[in-house]
Amino acid sequence: MYKEKIPKTTIYRLAIYLRTLEKIFREHRTFISSQEMGTLCGIDSAQVRKDLSYFGQFGEVGRGYSVKNLMDNLKKILKLYRRRWKVALAGVGHLGTALLSYRGFREAGFEISCAFDPDPKKIGKAIQNAKIYPPYKIEEIVSKEKIKIGIIAVPGDFAQDVAERMVSAGVRALLNFAPVKLNLPSGITVKNVDLSTELISLPFYLK
Amino acid sequence: MYKEKIPKTTIYRLAIYLRTLEKIFREHRTFISSQEMGTLCGIDSAQVRKDLSYFGQFGEVGRGYSVKNLMDNLKKILKLYRRRWKVALAGVGHLGTALLSYRGFREAGFEISCAFDPDPKKIGKAIQNAKIYPPYKIEEIVSKEKIKIGIIAVPGDFAQDVAERMVSAGVRALLNFAPVKLNLPSGITVKNVDLSTELISLPFYLK
Repeated sequence: MYKEKIPKTTIYRLAIYLRTLEKIFREHRTFISSQEMGTLCGIDSAQVRKDLSYFGQFGEVGRGYSVKNLMDNLKKILKLYRRRWKVALAGVGHLGTALLSYRGFREAGFEISCAFDPDPKKIGKAIQNAKIYPPYKIEEIVSKEKIKIGIIAVPGDFAQDVAERMVSAGVRALLNFAPVKLNLPSGITVKNVDLSTELISLPFYLK
Repeated sequence: MYKEKIPKTTIYRLAIYLRTLEKIFREHRTFISSQEMGTLCGIDSAQVRKDLSYFGQFGEVGRGYSVKNLMDNLKKILKLYRRRWKVALAGVGHLGTALLSYRGFREAGFEISCAFDPDPKKIGKAIQNAKIYPPYKIEEIVSKEKIKIGIIAVPGDFAQDVAERMVSAGVRALLNFAPVKLNLPSGITVKNVDLSTELISLPFYLK
């Protein structure tokens, strides 16, 4: 409904705010100002207030935001409240294996429940809770498990095909680590992860 | 000099603009408007203009930005023009191995030239151009090769120690994949990569 009007960058920043609030919460803090949120997140405090204003009035005059309250609200907005999302992973190479072992996903409310790789030595094994299947099983397993979120960690040449097959089986949002632009039907959300961008911004600070 | 006044988020966005311009350039486009840049990068066009305005006047009235000219200028600002940065990597597990094989770093002007891992089976081998050394060699190799940029891909418990040793050997900027906050002297730039944040923003778009 209102979703079309909210910038994607706002949603991404809500995720940053949530991660920061979780940290603050573990340190037993109860209130935080938009200024401090901004500083901790590296985001202008006016931007913090604008992003949150799309979803309601969360601050209390003179006290700022209740950490617990804002955290719960952000979880509700981001659909992470009292639920766990199943995720399908394509590609169990080094990156895929690293992602399967990454505890942060589980802590954030996600579980990679199945993985796909053509390597016969990997098929049938399980890493964490994810059983590894051959790629021709993508449609069957993804639709049977009603999975809506996929991670693409295959080489660039295979990414488009694998993504299309996930989408045909019901996946509606993809995290794409392959260095290619995916062409998918409208209504499918794709988030490209480009690790180079992170590295590129470092030399600026060097003498 | 002026560096203190420029928001870190601006520098990060310059990296996003550069990656987008490189793509546009490969498609033989010659000019681009701030509106189109904004759309392609998922960033408000007023923000694009503000970010660039810190560094000069790059647009041409009625034509927008010359792709080649803006690309070269951003490379100069980000210190990526006509030079290649050597990078030291700590941790040759699955993630570290994936990073060593990641072509995007090389294309962006970086070369992981040495790596560190305690596993005797890995020490002495090389992946791409990076020879693998035991961790006690960090100080020796990093200072000998005059490396200013480090990547931390070790388990959380080891990240602080490894980061300190890289810094003592001359590293001034770090890309940190470990899920811990590093405490380092001021003047050291740390960019934390939190893959969960990318994933967290996806469910919002699901029905």
